[in-house]
Amino acid sequence: MEIYKIPLDAAFHALADPTRRAVVSRLTRSPAPVKELAAPFDIGLPAFLKHLRVLEDSGLITTEKTGRIRTCRVRIERLAQAESWLSEQRAHWLAMTDRLAAYIETKMHEDDEDDG
Amino acid sequence: MEIYKIPLDAAFHALADPTRRAVVSRLTRSPAPVKELAAPFDIGLPAFLKHLRVLEDSGLITTEKTGRIRTCRVRIERLAQAESWLSEQRAHWLAMTDRLAAYIETKMHEDDEDDG
Repeated sequence: MEIYKIPLDAAFHALADPTRRAVVSRLTRSPAPVKELAAPFDIGLPAFLKHLRVLEDSGLITTEKTGRIRTCRVRIERLAQAESWLSEQRAHWLAMTDRLAAYIETKMHEDDEDDG
Repeated sequence: MEIYKIPLDAAFHALADPTRRAVVSRLTRSPAPVKELAAPFDIGLPAFLKHLRVLEDSGLITTEKTGRIRTCRVRIERLAQAESWLSEQRAHWLAMTDRLAAYIETKMHEDDEDDG
């Protein structure tokens, strides 16, 4: 259980920053070299590389160096893992509201019968 | 855009901790008083209340005090917002892989025609 939890800790932590989310979003459209990824952001390269490191450590992206170019890719299975956790919670919640609705309906029928 | 980003920052930050995720998960099953929520965790009440505060500040839960009982509830729309962001990314990625597959197919046809 703990082993499963740690990747989620790291993934959610990595996603708690708008620059890192923008990088993930960009990489879902295609792999990209670091220089191109950094271009739209008004921050220094060292700060940008720190964000990339957090993303790489979380497993949300991989980077691969060929010659002088480091190419970044999104790891969709890690994103999907975070999404699955959230959709499980929604499923629990929907089941709970279903039970609640069923309970209220039963109560209303009982009240009708008491009245009738 | 910034207004939209801040809730996501807070929501993902709040979810980057196993205790806080366990609380959210518990609350998707039913609202619960703080005392009951805290019971399964082997941490002091002040530390637990700090986690609740992070969750409340992120908008993932609400708390309401009636007499001496504080009841916590999950805010499913905030969870759904985080889930939507992730599912959008997956959609982009699927579109990208579709385009890539189509490109490869076209290339293979071209090669076949060159050979033929």
